[in-house]
Formats: sequence, structure tokens, C-alpha cells
Amino acid sequence: MGHKLLLLTKANEQYRQLIEAQKLTDLVLLSDDPANIATADIWLAEPKLAAPLLPHAKKLQWLQSSFAGIDALLSPRGRKDYRLTNIKGIFGPLMSEYLFGYLLAHIRGHHFYRQQQRQKNWQAQPPMRHSTLQGMRLLLLGTGSIAQQVAQTAKHFGMQVTGINRSGQAVAGFDQIEVIPRLEQAINDADVVVNLLPSTPETRNILNAPRLSMLKEDAILMNVGRGDALDLDALNAQLIAHPLQQAVLDVFHQEPLPASHPIWDRPNVVITPHISAPSHPEQIVDIFSDNYHRFIKGEPLLSQIDFARGY
Amino acid sequence: MGHKLLLLTKANEQYRQLIEAQKLTDLVLLSDDPANIATADIWLAEPKLAAPLLPHAKKLQWLQSSFAGIDALLSPRGRKDYRLTNIKGIFGPLMSEYLFGYLLAHIRGHHFYRQQQRQKNWQAQPPMRHSTLQGMRLLLLGTGSIAQQVAQTAKHFGMQVTGINRSGQAVAGFDQIEVIPRLEQAINDADVVVNLLPSTPETRNILNAPRLSMLKEDAILMNVGRGDALDLDALNAQLIAHPLQQAVLDVFHQEPLPASHPIWDRPNVVITPHISAPSHPEQIVDIFSDNYHRFIKGEPLLSQIDFARGY
Repeated sequence: MGHKLLLLTKANEQYRQLIEAQKLTDLVLLSDDPANIATADIWLAEPKLAAPLLPHAKKLQWLQSSFAGIDALLSPRGRKDYRLTNIKGIFGPLMSEYLFGYLLAHIRGHHFYRQQQRQKNWQAQPPMRHSTLQGMRLLLLGTGSIAQQVAQTAKHFGMQVTGINRSGQAVAGFDQIEVIPRLEQAINDADVVVNLLPSTPETRNILNAPRLSMLKEDAILMNVGRGDALDLDALNAQLIAHPLQQAVLDVFHQEPLPASHPIWDRPNVVITPHISAPSHPEQIVDIFSDNYHRFIKGEPLLSQIDFARGY
Repeated sequence: MGHKLLLLTKANEQYRQLIEAQKLTDLVLLSDDPANIATADIWLAEPKLAAPLLPHAKKLQWLQSSFAGIDALLSPRGRKDYRLTNIKGIFGPLMSEYLFGYLLAHIRGHHFYRQQQRQKNWQAQPPMRHSTLQGMRLLLLGTGSIAQQVAQTAKHFGMQVTGINRSGQAVAGFDQIEVIPRLEQAINDADVVVNLLPSTPETRNILNAPRLSMLKEDAILMNVGRGDALDLDALNAQLIAHPLQQAVLDVFHQEPLPASHPIWDRPNVVITPHISAPSHPEQIVDIFSDNYHRFIKGEPLLSQIDFARGY
């Protein structure tokens, strides 16, 4: 008796070809017919596409998320009678590219030099407090695998790196670890604050108005974790009052971010449409395939989510 | 008898304060009076400011350049009867910031997302051949201390790194080393080509029209070495014919780049005014101070230039 795989992604055809090429033992790749929702015992799925269909999943044993963020599948009344795995390890380098691309663009004056070029003007940027990443202080909210990769990039560029987690226990690659009750002070000490936390009840609204008000006058705030970690209206007000502060936002509580939100217009904000660490199907399928072999042998799956902890 | 130091930089007052704070033994810091050109035995100078005054330097024993590039002091008929030292080691990290800032901005679609934000449009960039640095092929012209730093950053981001030098000898941190006669093929193999070569008779015009024509259809060319390494008119023509290619230029044969040059207007060019690795006086003074102690003890100086080799 073979296993039956259902695909629930925005790139099903590409996934179908990649998985067929893997020739996985005892695996039947089902068509996109909705009737197969009831039949499949394995799903390879984007969490937001899978969540509304879960009540109809009669045979589901294992769901491999194609994303790192799986909070759509963690609602308190949601099903927990299947194994859920997510993607770890491949998003860190992509996230580092995103964060350091925008960080360097800000620090090294890309906007200023673009303006100068338009005017055919040969002029260096006026001195700023920070004109190099060397010696700048980075605060990472989160110390998991993605944060560890980001910390490594930051150390390569000579930054001081503090991480925030629940235990306060040391993590390799960080200069310092703080606990959430010390978040205000840590924000106040940092030149760059990056949120990488997953969405859990404790992280919701963690960057609220009082904490945002602790940001340095020329701080840079980046959110690539989850949109609901940040009070967006408070940030908007904060950035109006502090024009030297800069925000780089890739995730939002409501996505797409409504065109009516005033933060689109802030000159000191970069908004991107949740693209900081895009899923590349080739890499996802390699991870799925590895986990499938573990699944059929009855071995522990890689990156299995603990429904109680939420990650 | 003390030594006499002359300052020839665009930031003399800042250097004066920083050097006075070092309280260097037996060192008199001369005023900016032109009469002191004849008196000083040590100069801390920008090469282009020092070059025209060298014939009047009656006592010069040692010139510490405040820059890495010292070609202004290497003209064939120029004086060679003094010790010339330059700055190594501190420009590498700054250069990496510049190069990877612009490289990530290009690969990760900063321009596209800025346009989308203006239109309050939530839309991911259409797929490109490269949407991550991972796996991209970088060719570095030059394998010296700055190139080694850049290679290290490139490896951190998962790139394949080839270096070009005269000997073809292996250099730590590079995946592969090629020699200049194989430059055409190396350019053709690369996704990103970065010139870091100093200006010497052999490197002048090294990036000429036939070699530029070997660039891949979507290659990125960056020049942070010396302006005269590159045929700018040939590059301008090349970029018109190949709109997917991208150039990032920080150095020019004639600086400032004249406002009349057509390359200012190319949409696929970034032009910056020789700011990729700015000298920070604090760091320069630390290096000067270290070398001064060596000088008074009669020890070999750090980063002394061989006038015959030109670096």
C-alpha cells in the first residue's frame, strides 16, 4: 500500500515535476482534484492554503510546510492529530541577503547617491553617525536557526550582536543574550533592531508603542518575522516624529498591506511584499524527499513542530 | 632632535587633533605653512595633494599615504628617494560593504520594490536567472588584501570565487586563480566581475572593448580599483547594447566624472564619487602611529611600497 501525496502550493506544477523526478518509493502523487483532500495521508503545503482544508483531511498523517512560518496552522482550536514539519536552514542565507542588502543601502547612502547621479553631481554623502557596519550594534529578536545565520553575517561585517530569547541562555555566534523583560533597554542600546520571532501569543505586539519609543534617534528597525509582532500604526506615528529613524518591513498583520495604510507614504520606510526569504521549490523538494525517507522508515522527522510551543 | 611631520590631507584639522592626542615621542607637528614643505622629514598625505609638492621636499624621508591607491606618486620620472607606505587592511571591509550593498540591491530587486512601493503595489519581482547570491560566480581582478576580504564576504554568501593575478598562484579564500592571459574566458564564465587592481602600466585599459564584450548577457561589472583600468566609452556602448547588464562604478580616469559624459544617464549604471572605501582619520592615525614607532626604532615599516612593482 503506497502513500498518497497532495500538493497545496502556488507552484503545484513545478513541485509535481520536481517530485516525480525524485522517484520516491511507494509514493503516489495525487492530482489537484479537491476529492483528494480526503484521501491523501501526506500534504506538501503552504500553511495558509492548507489551514481552511484541514477539517476535510480524513487521512492526514504528516504535513510538510513549504514555508518556515506555520502560524496559520497553530490556531488554538486547530487540529493537532498529525505531524507538522516546516522548513529550516535554507531561509537563513536568503534572510541575511535581504537584511544586509537594505542595511547597507541605508548606511552607505544608496538613496543619496542615486539623487546625485540624476543631477550628474560628484559629491560625497555628508558624514553620518554610522557610515560603516563595523562597530554598529545589532539586536536580533529571536535566536533560532535563521537568527544564527543573520548573526554570522553581522559578525562578518564587524557588528556587535545581541540576541533576545525566552531563556536568556547563551547561543553560539551571539556576543550577548538578553531576555524579553529586558527588551526595552536592549532596544535602546541597539543601532539596528531586527524582528525574526515566529508568531506566538507571547510575541504578538511585542514591538508596541512604548518599546518603539525606546529606539535611538537614528535607529533602523527591520521586521521579517511576523507582521503581528509589530504595532504598525504606532510605528507610523513614531517614524513621522523621528525622521532619521528608518524601517524596513517585509511582513504585515494584513497581507497584502492595504493601499490605504498611511505607512506606504513614509519616506523613511521600505515596504516589500513578504519576499525576504522566498521558497525555492528545488530546495523544498530536497527537504521533503529527505523527510519522506524518514517517514516511511518510521524515523523522527526533521524540523517537526511542537504544537504546544508553536515552533 | 625631533622629527617634523607635515599634513597634506583634506581633513588636516581633524588629523592634527588626533595626532596630538597620540603624544608621539620626538615628533613636532608642523603648521600648514608652505615653507614647511622644505622642512618636514615625514609627510602624512593624500597622494594627489603630495605629488606636485614632492620636488620641493628637501628633507623627506618617509611619506605615509592616507589612501590605499598611491599611483599619483608612481610616475616614472617621480622621486623614489624616500620611503612610501600606504594603507592596507582597513579598506577591505569598507569595500565589501560597498560591493555587496550594490550587488544585493541589484540581485534582490531594490529598484523594483521601490517602484512598487510608490504605487502602493503588493507584487513580487518576476523571476530572474539569479535571485540569490548563493551559487553565483564572482571574478575578482586582483588577489591582494582587499580582494581577499571581498572573497571572504563572497564565500560567506555562498558564491564561487575566482581571482586573477599575475602569477596564477593559489591564494587562500579563492576557489580558483587564473592568470591575465585567461581573462577573456574568466569574464565569460562570471556572473559578477569586480576590478580591484591598482593602477600600473599593465592594468591600464585592462577592461577594454573586446574583453567587455565577453560579459554575460546579465552580468554585473563593478569598478572600485582604478578608473584607468576601464575603457569607459566602450562600457557605455556595451551597456546600451545589453540593457540587462549592470555596471557599478566608483572610480574614473577623470575625477570628478565630467557632467557631459553620457554614462551618467544610463539606467543600468550606478555612479558614485570614489566613496567605496573612505579613509576614516581615526583608523589612519592608528596606522601612522604604529609606523612612526617602527620608523624611530629603525624597524621595517608596514605596507611599504616597492617603487619598481608599483604596489
